[in-house]
Amino acid sequence: MINTLIDGIQKKNAPVVAGLDPMLDYVPDGIKDAAFEEFGETLEGAAEAVWQFNKGIVDAVYDLIPAVKPQIAMYEQFGVPGLAVFKRTVDYCKEKGLVVIGDVKRGDIGSTSAAYAAGHLGKVTVGSKSYYAFDEDFITVNPYFGIDGVKPFLDVCREEKKGIFLLVKTSNPSSGEFQDQKIDGTPLYELVGRKVAEWGAECMGAQYSYVGCVVGATYPEMGKALRKVMPKSYILVPGYGAQGGTAKDLVHYFNEDGLGAIINSSRGIIAAYKNETYAKYGEKNYAEASRKAVEDMIADIRSCI
Amino acid sequence: MINTLIDGIQKKNAPVVAGLDPMLDYVPDGIKDAAFEEFGETLEGAAEAVWQFNKGIVDAVYDLIPAVKPQIAMYEQFGVPGLAVFKRTVDYCKEKGLVVIGDVKRGDIGSTSAAYAAGHLGKVTVGSKSYYAFDEDFITVNPYFGIDGVKPFLDVCREEKKGIFLLVKTSNPSSGEFQDQKIDGTPLYELVGRKVAEWGAECMGAQYSYVGCVVGATYPEMGKALRKVMPKSYILVPGYGAQGGTAKDLVHYFNEDGLGAIINSSRGIIAAYKNETYAKYGEKNYAEASRKAVEDMIADIRSCI
Repeated sequence: MINTLIDGIQKKNAPVVAGLDPMLDYVPDGIKDAAFEEFGETLEGAAEAVWQFNKGIVDAVYDLIPAVKPQIAMYEQFGVPGLAVFKRTVDYCKEKGLVVIGDVKRGDIGSTSAAYAAGHLGKVTVGSKSYYAFDEDFITVNPYFGIDGVKPFLDVCREEKKGIFLLVKTSNPSSGEFQDQKIDGTPLYELVGRKVAEWGAECMGAQYSYVGCVVGATYPEMGKALRKVMPKSYILVPGYGAQGGTAKDLVHYFNEDGLGAIINSSRGIIAAYKNETYAKYGEKNYAEASRKAVEDMIADIRSCI
Repeated sequence: MINTLIDGIQKKNAPVVAGLDPMLDYVPDGIKDAAFEEFGETLEGAAEAVWQFNKGIVDAVYDLIPAVKPQIAMYEQFGVPGLAVFKRTVDYCKEKGLVVIGDVKRGDIGSTSAAYAAGHLGKVTVGSKSYYAFDEDFITVNPYFGIDGVKPFLDVCREEKKGIFLLVKTSNPSSGEFQDQKIDGTPLYELVGRKVAEWGAECMGAQYSYVGCVVGATYPEMGKALRKVMPKSYILVPGYGAQGGTAKDLVHYFNEDGLGAIINSSRGIIAAYKNETYAKYGEKNYAEASRKAVEDMIADIRSCI
């Protein structure tokens, strides 16, 4: 799947992923009203609004970008109906030829990680049959448990030719509270990064590993250092745009081959119409505003690599 | 909710939580056959089998213990139907007067943690209404993001009088890979433990904080040290039984007031009938085997505190 992702990045000349992290506040009133009329002001109504909102954006941008990253929390907050729309979104994006990175940040002891790996990347056995439950192409994984919490994901990745992005250095302001702590002079995030390189070496695609990592755009110096620590790992980079990362911060996240990083923007794309720059599109044309925001983001990123 | 949990522990004289982590392999054939007959060998069929299995166990043990801990991964692997049964299990256990600890190990950047907090502990707003989506009493939280990934959970805990258990030292063999790394002589898990104490001080119940922690039974020396670091935090202790922790390992997880820890067993309870000790009950009486396993576990724990 890492090969497919790279292929998409190269064909579209766009190392960009759209974060499908819908807040109900982002959804235009017209869509909400229609959904509430059909399902009431219920969890089902909220989920339907999110689905219609997502579909509009995906239809408007799928030809420009190689991948999307739905953040499962935004669906999970609406309970079972929300998660049904997460699944519907995953399926729809795959139909549109997009690589789907499930931003789930799961991770647990071995037997539990195995269940998450089966549910999100692999399949579960039910009697004589087996099923893919959520079936994303990649997911994000939390490393706090160490290798035996990660290994079940690696096993499924090898079997299914899928991939993971392990959290190394996250984009949020307090990420340093634990991640920057120094162990014999080496910050914890770098220690995790070294493990990403080590574990990733066992799961190689054509040029890059199935095991990527997450390094926030908001910490460019650390991104530069981590690039060298994990030369064969794709870096999924959140924090561009709304969180404060700029294109010039991102140049060192890429390798000399022009590959090795994929930049995420969520709010900046899906809520573009709420941004002054794209306000002229108005609520009704929110998806066109998202398309323009994607085009501008791609141009911005291209200018720096 | 910490007060309710402690009240339950004292009334039942049982600092014990049953982990509802059903693998399909644990479910007796009779239950699976009936579920598959009704729903086919499908995700819905698997979910129905898990539900019937859970209900049998809960009915058999609810009067003995104060709390249950469903592990969401075991439901999530069956996709949306599995998560519907997770919710059904949460609701049913609450009806039975049990405190429900959702073992979800979520954690992300602030805005995303806020969505998880709303979905699992609090409520979401849909138009002019609001809904509790999963509505557990407590959940487990991963600390890797630092305070701004944890704060949204604390905010909801204060508002809803609910609680969290932050991962400090997990029970799995490789938990030391990152958690034991020393920062100026102090292991990372202790650094996280100190934060649990600090953050917990802002969220106090009558005697203990709404902010508890997870420390595996498999690391008793660390448990002993961590008890002193977080005197006002309840320790949720996985790893008893199937993972290797014994009652005598657990004495130091408790405070002198006889409180401060609650011991989880999952496989040892829910799959008791598969254990030689309880094999005489047979598949058909799996729930009675679980009840006997709970009684034996309670006696074992009581003998050590």
